[in-house]
Amino acid sequence: MGKIKQVAVVGGTHGNEFSGIYLLKKWQRKPELLHRPGLSIDTVFANPKGFEENKRYLDCDLNRQFTLADLANNELTNYEQSRAKVINAQLGPKGNAKSDFIIDLHNTTSNMGPTLILLKSDDFNKKMGAYVLAKMPEAVVVFEDQVSMEEHYFLASIADQGVIVEIGPQSQSVIRQDVLDWMENMTQAILDFVELYNSDNLPELPSSYDAYSYVESIKLPMDENGERIGMVHKNVQDNDFKPLTKGDPIFTLFDGGEITYQGDYEAYPHFINEAAYYDNNLAMSLGKKITVSLD
Amino acid sequence: MGKIKQVAVVGGTHGNEFSGIYLLKKWQRKPELLHRPGLSIDTVFANPKGFEENKRYLDCDLNRQFTLADLANNELTNYEQSRAKVINAQLGPKGNAKSDFIIDLHNTTSNMGPTLILLKSDDFNKKMGAYVLAKMPEAVVVFEDQVSMEEHYFLASIADQGVIVEIGPQSQSVIRQDVLDWMENMTQAILDFVELYNSDNLPELPSSYDAYSYVESIKLPMDENGERIGMVHKNVQDNDFKPLTKGDPIFTLFDGGEITYQGDYEAYPHFINEAAYYDNNLAMSLGKKITVSLD
Repeated sequence: MGKIKQVAVVGGTHGNEFSGIYLLKKWQRKPELLHRPGLSIDTVFANPKGFEENKRYLDCDLNRQFTLADLANNELTNYEQSRAKVINAQLGPKGNAKSDFIIDLHNTTSNMGPTLILLKSDDFNKKMGAYVLAKMPEAVVVFEDQVSMEEHYFLASIADQGVIVEIGPQSQSVIRQDVLDWMENMTQAILDFVELYNSDNLPELPSSYDAYSYVESIKLPMDENGERIGMVHKNVQDNDFKPLTKGDPIFTLFDGGEITYQGDYEAYPHFINEAAYYDNNLAMSLGKKITVSLD
Repeated sequence: MGKIKQVAVVGGTHGNEFSGIYLLKKWQRKPELLHRPGLSIDTVFANPKGFEENKRYLDCDLNRQFTLADLANNELTNYEQSRAKVINAQLGPKGNAKSDFIIDLHNTTSNMGPTLILLKSDDFNKKMGAYVLAKMPEAVVVFEDQVSMEEHYFLASIADQGVIVEIGPQSQSVIRQDVLDWMENMTQAILDFVELYNSDNLPELPSSYDAYSYVESIKLPMDENGERIGMVHKNVQDNDFKPLTKGDPIFTLFDGGEITYQGDYEAYPHFINEAAYYDNNLAMSLGKKITVSLD
């Protein structure tokens, strides 16, 4: 890949995830905080109407609208589908994008700490993970590289390189200082990394590190009418990135019963009991632990 | 006061506080869980449209609509104002209510644990606090008895006796098992207490206990345009019911500055950084620690 020149830092893709929105305000007042030699950095407030109405979205989840097919589909006309096309014109177009790199800032209600979600596992992303972990030992790196950038529906996939900064736990529509600080530190570390990667000046990085790779999302227990009949088990709640093995309780039913994990792999749950995922009755994501090698 | 016969257990006064809503569903399936000799217990789902739309409220906060004056004001006609009048007809009318006692179930995003909010400090309420603390040592008792029941705007003030069960931390629109269990246990303890109080069969209670008394609510820092310029300080976040003394940092400004607590009393903050209170830019409530004596 060529050098990264044009960078977009995006906040407020979900209108009730406040950290990115307030960081954008700060950086718009003090743009020098984002300056890096060789980089041109824009900030984008993706869903201002969502923020105004204090909701994740008005019509549909903006961060699911960025497949090439949907961007090209002019029948998709609601607010977020329209915003997706406008943002794609502004930062993209996807496949031939003006932006070389996008950082999209998110919050989760789950106890994920400062998580860096990488959409590719090439040299650039693998080294970014190592660099961010070196600067923030409390951080976690998750690869969601199961599909190509073209097929990814995330905003950050408009550019050839894009990452999601995902920090929690934070209730929707709140600003927590610890979460804000983590998001600011991770964003700054990523920009430092890009500058150092561009100029081939990276510090020595470990030869390998632990990370997680997304496998699947699992649903809350429901009855035949689609009504929820259970909740995340208290042993799992808040234990993002702690392993689940076959037979571990995973859900508690409202009638008192339990459901155990029956997968055939050691699963690392994350996005556990994320409020926004109730729309689709998702209980959590499961990943595998991986070792990332830097050659 | 006379014996308590008619009890209402209310959930979903705020549509995105899920614990009470799911407990009501459970108790409606298994009403025997609420049965107590001598008591007739109804369950009421106060704001079903709020739940349907996954919002605290559609038009205004239902739990602020129950002063005698507002209930009598026929100009107040929006959804929650209408629900208030209907619920007042169903459980009240306030001043001459069919219900002798109301338990209103709430969640907070603040780290308040299982909190019992008492609206009066008469013998019944003081003993209820002692009884609940004896059954749930992790519980906290807060008196919000600064105004008379007539002037209280809470739903629970329709009856001559009413309490608020306030459990957190729980993000809006989520069910946490620990929070659900606390709410169920506290509700059961309260019903046990009422039965025992009625029949003069209370166990021996300590002669005094610590509780908190509401003093004031304080606002987030704002500029002259009403825009927030700071957030709850990280030393205060999650430290509900931990004392603040003059000079302690209480807010961090987005520009890096700090604001310290300048009150002239040792303050016990609660509802710290509650998401729902951002509507009014409230940062937290402050209370004083008190010793409640049972004579």
